[in-house]
Amino acid sequence: MRHDGRRSDEMRAISMERAVSRHAEGSCLVKFGDTHVLCTASLEERVPPWLRGGGEGWVTAEYGMLPRATKERMRREASAGKQSGRTQEIQRLIGRSLRAVVDRAALGERQISVDCDVIQADGGTRTAAITGAWVALSDCMTYMMSAGMITANPLTDHVAAISCGIVDGAPVLDLDYIEDSSAHTDANFVMTGSGGIVEVQGTAEGAPFSRDELTALLDLASGGISRLVDLQKLTVA
Amino acid sequence: MRHDGRRSDEMRAISMERAVSRHAEGSCLVKFGDTHVLCTASLEERVPPWLRGGGEGWVTAEYGMLPRATKERMRREASAGKQSGRTQEIQRLIGRSLRAVVDRAALGERQISVDCDVIQADGGTRTAAITGAWVALSDCMTYMMSAGMITANPLTDHVAAISCGIVDGAPVLDLDYIEDSSAHTDANFVMTGSGGIVEVQGTAEGAPFSRDELTALLDLASGGISRLVDLQKLTVA
Amino acid sequence: MRHDGRRSDEMRAISMERAVSRHAEGSCLVKFGDTHVLCTASLEERVPPWLRGGGEGWVTAEYGMLPRATKERMRREASAGKQSGRTQEIQRLIGRSLRAVVDRAALGERQISVDCDVIQADGGTRTAAITGAWVALSDCMTYMMSAGMITANPLTDHVAAISCGIVDGAPVLDLDYIEDSSAHTDANFVMTGSGGIVEVQGTAEGAPFSRDELTALLDLASGGISRLVDLQKLTVA
Amino acid sequence: MRHDGRRSDEMRAISMERAVSRHAEGSCLVKFGDTHVLCTASLEERVPPWLRGGGEGWVTAEYGMLPRATKERMRREASAGKQSGRTQEIQRLIGRSLRAVVDRAALGERQISVDCDVIQADGGTRTAAITGAWVALSDCMTYMMSAGMITANPLTDHVAAISCGIVDGAPVLDLDYIEDSSAHTDANFVMTGSGGIVEVQGTAEGAPFSRDELTALLDLASGGISRLVDLQKLTVA
Amino acid sequence: MRHDGRRSDEMRAISMERAVSRHAEGSCLVKFGDTHVLCTASLEERVPPWLRGGGEGWVTAEYGMLPRATKERMRREASAGKQSGRTQEIQRLIGRSLRAVVDRAALGERQISVDCDVIQADGGTRTAAITGAWVALSDCMTYMMSAGMITANPLTDHVAAISCGIVDGAPVLDLDYIEDSSAHTDANFVMTGSGGIVEVQGTAEGAPFSRDELTALLDLASGGISRLVDLQKLTVA
Amino acid sequence: MRHDGRRSDEMRAISMERAVSRHAEGSCLVKFGDTHVLCTASLEERVPPWLRGGGEGWVTAEYGMLPRATKERMRREASAGKQSGRTQEIQRLIGRSLRAVVDRAALGERQISVDCDVIQADGGTRTAAITGAWVALSDCMTYMMSAGMITANPLTDHVAAISCGIVDGAPVLDLDYIEDSSAHTDANFVMTGSGGIVEVQGTAEGAPFSRDELTALLDLASGGISRLVDLQKLTVA
Repeated sequence: MRHDGRRSDEMRAISMERAVSRHAEGSCLVKFGDTHVLCTASLEERVPPWLRGGGEGWVTAEYGMLPRATKERMRREASAGKQSGRTQEIQRLIGRSLRAVVDRAALGERQISVDCDVIQADGGTRTAAITGAWVALSDCMTYMMSAGMITANPLTDHVAAISCGIVDGAPVLDLDYIEDSSAHTDANFVMTGSGGIVEVQGTAEGAPFSRDELTALLDLASGGISRLVDLQKLTVA
Repeated sequence: MRHDGRRSDEMRAISMERAVSRHAEGSCLVKFGDTHVLCTASLEERVPPWLRGGGEGWVTAEYGMLPRATKERMRREASAGKQSGRTQEIQRLIGRSLRAVVDRAALGERQISVDCDVIQADGGTRTAAITGAWVALSDCMTYMMSAGMITANPLTDHVAAISCGIVDGAPVLDLDYIEDSSAHTDANFVMTGSGGIVEVQGTAEGAPFSRDELTALLDLASGGISRLVDLQKLTVA
Repeated sequence: MRHDGRRSDEMRAISMERAVSRHAEGSCLVKFGDTHVLCTASLEERVPPWLRGGGEGWVTAEYGMLPRATKERMRREASAGKQSGRTQEIQRLIGRSLRAVVDRAALGERQISVDCDVIQADGGTRTAAITGAWVALSDCMTYMMSAGMITANPLTDHVAAISCGIVDGAPVLDLDYIEDSSAHTDANFVMTGSGGIVEVQGTAEGAPFSRDELTALLDLASGGISRLVDLQKLTVA
Repeated sequence: MRHDGRRSDEMRAISMERAVSRHAEGSCLVKFGDTHVLCTASLEERVPPWLRGGGEGWVTAEYGMLPRATKERMRREASAGKQSGRTQEIQRLIGRSLRAVVDRAALGERQISVDCDVIQADGGTRTAAITGAWVALSDCMTYMMSAGMITANPLTDHVAAISCGIVDGAPVLDLDYIEDSSAHTDANFVMTGSGGIVEVQGTAEGAPFSRDELTALLDLASGGISRLVDLQKLTVA
Repeated sequence: MRHDGRRSDEMRAISMERAVSRHAEGSCLVKFGDTHVLCTASLEERVPPWLRGGGEGWVTAEYGMLPRATKERMRREASAGKQSGRTQEIQRLIGRSLRAVVDRAALGERQISVDCDVIQADGGTRTAAITGAWVALSDCMTYMMSAGMITANPLTDHVAAISCGIVDGAPVLDLDYIEDSSAHTDANFVMTGSGGIVEVQGTAEGAPFSRDELTALLDLASGGISRLVDLQKLTVA
Repeated sequence: MRHDGRRSDEMRAISMERAVSRHAEGSCLVKFGDTHVLCTASLEERVPPWLRGGGEGWVTAEYGMLPRATKERMRREASAGKQSGRTQEIQRLIGRSLRAVVDRAALGERQISVDCDVIQADGGTRTAAITGAWVALSDCMTYMMSAGMITANPLTDHVAAISCGIVDGAPVLDLDYIEDSSAHTDANFVMTGSGGIVEVQGTAEGAPFSRDELTALLDLASGGISRLVDLQKLTVA
């Protein structure tokens, strides 16, 4: 039994609310329990210098946390003058995950920037961000099609993410902050709607983990991501 | 008649929602029409170096905007590596405004940091921020009293703020983005619940303005701030 | 009676010396008592990116203090690696004030940068800077006309500034450092030669101030600025 | 057949040379083919602030590349004024990997900083860095024991790392730059001498990968890391 | 004949004005022709961390140029966010030069910071700065003795500096900007009142120079510095 | 007798190894005893903005030290976010020294960046860097001629550098770290193959030095540089 009563393969209450921003071409407020992330997709008619003239587009992501999203207030990165290594690592992961399901030629020479800002944190912010970012991105694609900018949807599949870990010796799905702090192994999985793996990141926090444990975590993640993709489908339907 | 049908002395729909953050000692999501600002108050048991040992506390504020809070996406300040002059100017204003109604000796040697993050912008972000920050600060004070950390409330009064301007030759209250962009004069007023002026900032955007115009704007602001203070009272009641 | 014997509506000894820089297209060493600011106007045949091709020019300002302009040595901003919020706030104010009296179309697609560097500080550095910057700017305009670059003077009026405050309960004009440190209310006014208000900034340092007090400060400022404009006229005659 | 004639499970020529620095308490020049990384371990009698007084030590790592370690010269990070997201991600990975095999209580309140500087790059710099860093760290531990600073070796196991990927549809071990550039899936594994997994990072560069592919890569990695650990043993013997 | 009519061994008009700052413990406005540098000495009752508790003091220097000190406006270093390599090189030179004539034990555990700010530049700013900095430092020492902080003057000698160069094939003393721009060899000498060499820096701008040329420049510099030291003596007398 | 048994005019064991980088157009690992510097020359088909369209090329240099090149680990400059004044001073010196022997018109509109990275330090890193940088630059020129990019070698002469100093009252050549730390005078000389002086930098660390002492150091340096040039000739033969 987990500290909040969930089964080992049970995710927290998940919700995805679309069109939460008046200005953005696509947006989603995603909640994994008490973890709340606001995702906005911003369309720009330009691409980074290294892509100019090649006819392909780009999708990138930025990640941030409000200073008091966490239990203890953290220093504002804009005030500190730089983004932490953790922030950069996460926003690179979100960008890679989204690009894995985008046909960049179909997008044309445009850039979509997806901002994922954590309003409240309780573990799993990066996986919530990826999952909600897909919804924001999907709405941006729909916007572009409605506006006649593109004729085919550049999205080739869904993408969603979930964390797993070994807590008190048992593999569990979708760790909250308390579980995350005590997990012996912590892993994040990014998978597509068709079940392909886009990214797997497993880290031993104390003792190393075994292949069997990795397999158990992968099983949990597959089930969770399948349900997240179902929710994405309902959300954008 | 204003572009959205308001009378010259009419504010946009105002709302203040308390306790929107699971972690902060006080919080408020304030809305002035489509301008939405999340304010959190964070209590720390330390003061800046220059106050140590003096027995007095400190209240400070930080301000930020999500990159796509605006019509065009703006560069993330954490990524740019510094806060703009505008950001610093606004957060200094918020801090001064709050300190005007705090008895720092009654607070004791503690610091309260109020973060004002603009989730969506449509003009008047700094005035909404000040008005909501007071609610977050008030709840933080209540928290401290409940916890027995202080016996008397260090808040000496309410403080709220509103913008005014001269648009198409007429003085109007609470400018939205469209009005702000075309105003010939733009002014921000910060006043207390008892009607004292804490801060007045008036700027001619084109031709200079006259003393009579300044007086007209001050009249509008007094009325608006009086209603904002009434709303604050209802909110924290 | 003020600590230095001045009447409440009396400014310190004011002087403006033109052509103090061998290189700049316009320059002025302005003194408000012991506050000395060197202002230079630099002409460049280019405008910021957002104005290119529009036929209009730009006037901007930068502000700095020598490290030992003040009683205690301050850290050099170039060494600290960034400009303080105060510095940015002041240089934005100077730029806005100057642009209020410039016909940017008549200037043509050129930029004038006015540098205001405080050689010695004793209160009122921003108001001295604005007042002296106008003289430097005026000389730069004269230089451009002499050189046949423009045919009409883009300056539409004078602009000058003065501080006021409530010290020991009484409104006084042109605060020095000692008065500034003890003032209960501190205000800066920027006005044109024809008496229009360009900027008003009033701040309560302790208790809020009343509308009557604001009016008294505005009266003082109007008188002071009128005399500063007379001095500007004598200086550039 | 791979482009350089290697079998799919064949690593490049590996070498580890100890004691290559006159000053460092431990050092290793590790080569994975044309990838050369200089690792130095520096002992300091202090720990980061958050560990002070707790009796435990810390092991951290920094990573850098000489500007012309690569085919095209890259901008020097010291000149750019910041470390890239990639650099920070790698040095965090190296630090975590090393700490997984260190008994921080046995180390005592000291910090060991391992610098991994890439002298020449041809793919796999982070895996070479981890593998060589262990040797430098091991020598530093031996130095401390010889000096009587500690009585038991705080190293609990070996740790080494290798990259794998799917190139032209086939899983291969230890990618060089050419393979890395064309791989459809790229994965890095960090494992201990006893075969436990410390870190797994798999990324789909194009199409997602399957669980079977992940298993194949893990098989390859296990074999490779086992041989790297044998080499470490020979090196420090 | 030089372009401004000077003999080869003739310096520009030199002046040193003391006590030009109301706040600094010592100050000097030094002019070498059209090169004007304001030097202020600031006394602080603390030393850098590495000297604490050793009983010795420190003398350091900072150098800056106002943006329009030069023919073309230069970007303000505070705005650029860092000091250029040239600025750092010069301020390190000034600091070393001053420390060469200071008995740091006699100074006691205090720091004197000498700020050298170039108000107007026409070549030779670093040599003017060193020469004027000595006067500011000397007045600061006198101030400390008057205040009873020290009993013996920590200054052991004078120090002054001058530039020389080979212009149109001939060695000349005290180059102005025009000469500096066309010199084939440019050298700066720092010497004491008793004729000892503190620093020599010679640079070939085009073809290398010979030992005989270096000797000729050294002869010129010795004569010039001797006269600068005489002027320093008259100034502080 | 010197602490390591060398005669006063004896350099440490010198070696220069070419072609040590797989990627660079020219490279040299230069050793002056225990001081080891890796120099790489990188060719780019572009010049800095101020040279564009003029038909001339540019040679520049960057300098860095690995954090544990020294006895005590130094903070990594990329992590500190800026290059120290010392680093900038040295890389400017290396660049000037190399440009003194390059015909920039013969080079054509191209830039060669020479990176000098100190792998291990024991005094004299800047002089070793200049000496080795010439070899890397020479190989880069040879590469360009082989590739038919240029027909004449833009190198007009050799350039090499050596340090001298007055240690225990006696002038000695090529100081190591121990001597450098105790030298009363420290000087660096850069000279060409034909004996011309490119740069001389002499600094009194304690008492000033005399003209005779400067002459003695120059004599030592001339002999040492002559031998370094002979070694360069053997190396690139």
